Amino acid sequence: MVRTAVAGASGYAGGELLRLLLGHPGVEIGAVTAASNAGRPVTALQPHLAPLAGRVFEETTPQVLAGHDVVFLALPHGQSAAVAAELGEGTLVVDCGADFRLKDAGEWERFYGSAHAGTWPYGLPELPGGREALKGARRIAVPGCYPTAVSLALAPAYGAGLAEPEAVVVAASGTSGAGKAAKPHLLGSEVMGSASAYGVGGTHRHTPEIAQNLSAIAGRPVKVSFTPVLVPMPRGILATCSAPALPGVTADALRSAYEKAYADEPFVQLLPAGQQPSTGAVTGSNTVHVQVALDEVAGRIVVVSAIDNLTKGTAGGAVQSMNIALGLPEGLGLAVTGVAP
Amino acid sequence: MVRTAVAGASGYAGGELLRLLLGHPGVEIGAVTAASNAGRPVTALQPHLAPLAGRVFEETTPQVLAGHDVVFLALPHGQSAAVAAELGEGTLVVDCGADFRLKDAGEWERFYGSAHAGTWPYGLPELPGGREALKGARRIAVPGCYPTAVSLALAPAYGAGLAEPEAVVVAASGTSGAGKAAKPHLLGSEVMGSASAYGVGGTHRHTPEIAQNLSAIAGRPVKVSFTPVLVPMPRGILATCSAPALPGVTADALRSAYEKAYADEPFVQLLPAGQQPSTGAVTGSNTVHVQVALDEVAGRIVVVSAIDNLTKGTAGGAVQSMNIALGLPEGLGLAVTGVAP
Amino acid sequence: MVRTAVAGASGYAGGELLRLLLGHPGVEIGAVTAASNAGRPVTALQPHLAPLAGRVFEETTPQVLAGHDVVFLALPHGQSAAVAAELGEGTLVVDCGADFRLKDAGEWERFYGSAHAGTWPYGLPELPGGREALKGARRIAVPGCYPTAVSLALAPAYGAGLAEPEAVVVAASGTSGAGKAAKPHLLGSEVMGSASAYGVGGTHRHTPEIAQNLSAIAGRPVKVSFTPVLVPMPRGILATCSAPALPGVTADALRSAYEKAYADEPFVQLLPAGQQPSTGAVTGSNTVHVQVALDEVAGRIVVVSAIDNLTKGTAGGAVQSMNIALGLPEGLGLAVTGVAP
Amino acid sequence: MVRTAVAGASGYAGGELLRLLLGHPGVEIGAVTAASNAGRPVTALQPHLAPLAGRVFEETTPQVLAGHDVVFLALPHGQSAAVAAELGEGTLVVDCGADFRLKDAGEWERFYGSAHAGTWPYGLPELPGGREALKGARRIAVPGCYPTAVSLALAPAYGAGLAEPEAVVVAASGTSGAGKAAKPHLLGSEVMGSASAYGVGGTHRHTPEIAQNLSAIAGRPVKVSFTPVLVPMPRGILATCSAPALPGVTADALRSAYEKAYADEPFVQLLPAGQQPSTGAVTGSNTVHVQVALDEVAGRIVVVSAIDNLTKGTAGGAVQSMNIALGLPEGLGLAVTGVAP
Repeated sequence: MVRTAVAGASGYAGGELLRLLLGHPGVEIGAVTAASNAGRPVTALQPHLAPLAGRVFEETTPQVLAGHDVVFLALPHGQSAAVAAELGEGTLVVDCGADFRLKDAGEWERFYGSAHAGTWPYGLPELPGGREALKGARRIAVPGCYPTAVSLALAPAYGAGLAEPEAVVVAASGTSGAGKAAKPHLLGSEVMGSASAYGVGGTHRHTPEIAQNLSAIAGRPVKVSFTPVLVPMPRGILATCSAPALPGVTADALRSAYEKAYADEPFVQLLPAGQQPSTGAVTGSNTVHVQVALDEVAGRIVVVSAIDNLTKGTAGGAVQSMNIALGLPEGLGLAVTGVAP
Repeated sequence: MVRTAVAGASGYAGGELLRLLLGHPGVEIGAVTAASNAGRPVTALQPHLAPLAGRVFEETTPQVLAGHDVVFLALPHGQSAAVAAELGEGTLVVDCGADFRLKDAGEWERFYGSAHAGTWPYGLPELPGGREALKGARRIAVPGCYPTAVSLALAPAYGAGLAEPEAVVVAASGTSGAGKAAKPHLLGSEVMGSASAYGVGGTHRHTPEIAQNLSAIAGRPVKVSFTPVLVPMPRGILATCSAPALPGVTADALRSAYEKAYADEPFVQLLPAGQQPSTGAVTGSNTVHVQVALDEVAGRIVVVSAIDNLTKGTAGGAVQSMNIALGLPEGLGLAVTGVAP
Repeated sequence: MVRTAVAGASGYAGGELLRLLLGHPGVEIGAVTAASNAGRPVTALQPHLAPLAGRVFEETTPQVLAGHDVVFLALPHGQSAAVAAELGEGTLVVDCGADFRLKDAGEWERFYGSAHAGTWPYGLPELPGGREALKGARRIAVPGCYPTAVSLALAPAYGAGLAEPEAVVVAASGTSGAGKAAKPHLLGSEVMGSASAYGVGGTHRHTPEIAQNLSAIAGRPVKVSFTPVLVPMPRGILATCSAPALPGVTADALRSAYEKAYADEPFVQLLPAGQQPSTGAVTGSNTVHVQVALDEVAGRIVVVSAIDNLTKGTAGGAVQSMNIALGLPEGLGLAVTGVAP
Repeated sequence: MVRTAVAGASGYAGGELLRLLLGHPGVEIGAVTAASNAGRPVTALQPHLAPLAGRVFEETTPQVLAGHDVVFLALPHGQSAAVAAELGEGTLVVDCGADFRLKDAGEWERFYGSAHAGTWPYGLPELPGGREALKGARRIAVPGCYPTAVSLALAPAYGAGLAEPEAVVVAASGTSGAGKAAKPHLLGSEVMGSASAYGVGGTHRHTPEIAQNLSAIAGRPVKVSFTPVLVPMPRGILATCSAPALPGVTADALRSAYEKAYADEPFVQLLPAGQQPSTGAVTGSNTVHVQVALDEVAGRIVVVSAIDNLTKGTAGGAVQSMNIALGLPEGLGLAVTGVAP
């Protein structure tokens, strides 16, 4: 049995990690920690985690986190490095925060306003070379939820050299992506019946991460215009991604590139022609639904992808990466089927 | 491996059965049938069931359903008897419809307007004697979703003789309980932002089933006033149930009755004092959350229960009952944790 | 032109008051005040109130509120008395808070935990004698949102002497009724896809107000079991109310009582037989939809009513009462049509 | 009093027209017609229109529609020409359908598959020259809901010559835009908790209408990549629109262009810097909220606009255009304030 701990377990990412770990046949759950919620019963904040009834959040300290095979971090940005430094190389540390995702220290500082902590192996196995980078890893940076949806949507187009390096992405997200801290604009009264954009004009922190991924695949810098949109649902990201098609690209060539890229991926489903992804179909699962089209009038490749932001977009990606790092079956403890409707 | 079939698999109950069976380690899925949707790809109608990609709905015929160990029926009311008659006693038939739930032929005729087909063992193991009645059964009638939520809410009060035999129930339900047939009042535009009652005045078909259960527990006829309310969510039932307290009943005695009734039930959680059930916490799980209070001014026992109408309220209850009937571990393939938020 | 002020205008009740006053042809808007939000632009907190762009919330002080014909108070409970004391009898004060609703000082203290401030004329003109009590009034206590929905649902039954004095009410409410203060359980992620009860067991503060109204109509004490349920919509209350029918009550007599009670009420619509109220149909309007049924098996009268909690349930009721007090046409500035779907 | 009729009044556009006309002080409502719903009570299908209780839908015939000053058509595409032909030039015909919007017969045929009926004055007064074209008009083509949101978002950028002629638009829409016909994918169970794109790859019928508008403003052909996304709300469109900025464009120049374009528009609000549009703030109103940003890294102008698809996007635009055509105050009967939250 792999012994796991979750630090920062009172939020949505932490709750989803616990949900998946409770259903994972190869792990047991050790420490479950929180910051201001330390001392409170787990099920007071996570009432859906019935099997943890009777347990209490511990404080996030090195002593509490010591002695686990795997420690998942679901902490606010900027706190992971200090915690990880206390955990030896014998411990697999899987960071759901942003701290170790970006390679460019300048980009990190521009978007996060603090010193760059470094770069860890990136937990998106479906990217070219992604799976290999995770085998045996002892430190993993789980991708952001938007970068997961967008990178998997556009990777085959850039990998096959079909698109100009100028991507435009508008992604609708459920509210859990904004976290569990009580803020007025996230109240149910505000979000139900309303859609709104945020981070407009290239200011969202996931923008450089998306550009980093696409540029690596394309082999040249890809400019990314990214606008996230908050829509009235608790979970899910629907990413609508487009880029100018290079001259001569055909719809058949485009679809072939996607079929080839994802033929053997257990968690990526290229939908049959004519069927569009919906986030509802992947709720609670680690699955990515993708559909691709060529708009010949506008001259653009248009790709739509759907994920559950908390599962494949965060905790599911973390567990999948852990499985690979530890040599377990990649899909252990992860659902392919969504909870729908 | 137990070989299962699902008849009527293109609707919501059928889809949930398939979702659970796909995750059940002791079964394999054989025939998957539909009526007007026969011939269509399964994932065209159930896009969340990715592992069934490539399969097509077959027609619901005796030939197609033959040769399975278990056949689940998710058919419109009135069709189950004819299908079951073609399946020998060697086959376990689990009916998610209403046909075999009521014992009183007159009540059946009054509420369903057709001839009574009979009565099968009732798939609610948490009721007194319920588990025993299912062991080795070859025919099982899965309870209605509202009767599941209401009967488990009030059973301890009536079982311990604490309440007058006059229950008042108002239950809020998500829209999947109304099925997948396209009707104008079930359009998203109509249901989002709106709550409405239906079946008002004792006309909902689940009323006699609730009364049958409560009367059996109380050992005398229990009158039931039941009003279902449609609220804007896809899944979930929140049942608010009350009955006059008998003279001398105390809050402590009441809570003790509930603690005793559910101490060993794997799928029923009496919440800690001060915590109220919410349907979101049980989404996708087979869990029932229950809380009980004594209103001393009004002189009433008030019990609130939350279930997922498609899981514990239909398909989860069906799988749980199948497990008991076949001698498998009762919780096999069923989640205790909900998918929240 | 009647000059109006709104104190506590940054919340939901205050915002709805401003929306209605902006559309009212007989008033102009003077002071618009807030507490912690004083100094912020009105449209930063109330972006839907475009005509107030450029205005800033003032502080809630006697100086700022002086010199208006009408002052609406949308303050936290317990603050209205002090503010009203500074406003002379020449000013009509309309209090949307609870402070002056209850007649029984003991009930006030039990439910609100502070000293009783007194009782003002009650702003529910559709109750027997209600309209007369408001004519020329200089102080008005606007009813709670639940008491509005419930009292209008059951008033004809008790007024005509058809029901036993033991009412059971379960009311589904949108989240705006819980206010705009950011609390974790009111986050969109928590409320979407979930229903939950609160104030269970007779503890909700609107319980004695409902009992006070029904008892006055019935002419004897009415016991009330009241359970509010939070459902995923921003606005609306659907109240399902029932009481045992007195012996000999018929469905015809029941319907006649309701037809008679509401035949001339501009804002109460008894729906045609067979049509149930839905909160969506009254969104943004001052209208109450009512339907009534007799459940002969359970022996209960069942009444369902729908209102918009912010309009008829708060700000619309306040404006309607102001109109009556000032001798203006009762419906001025109030919509009868809802914004649906 | 202007005497109006609404043809096709049982759907969402027709219902919204009736709602607005009921609140319009300068009109009275004559014929209210439907197709398959003819003979049914208006409030059975439009329960929010309480003042029309007692009225019945008539059939859509020339006789019924004769004798009105204004006839609004809310008919399926392709039916307006025949109805309009029966109405003399003395009657103002306002068509909410698509039939007379496109100038290019080839585009019409490509997207609608039928013969082109012609082109009428276009009901979007905020476009350059738009208001003048409507004065005294006897035939008006109301714009599509998406073209309204998108054209007003990008018009100032193209009007001031700041953007390359290659626009990318992703617009989130509430479900009422898809109409009231009961289709399985529009069920509440399907749309709640789920976002999905449709008409992907340039196939949505509003694409050529958007391109027509933007090209006219830019004075050269503008290529448009348009993807609509269905999100879980009944009303509202949030359009995220971008185009490459021409060299040398600054954020200040961009904002100035928008301030200048909309300074005097009663229904278009350029929000203060830092505030993003949300559809909830414009629900039920004729208001358009707009915000603009320059993404200097991606080199793109990004504009977000919010409208209510049924009000400004359909029925409100129709009434506003009628007001202009008849010489009434442009805003008569139209709300500037939204119903929020």
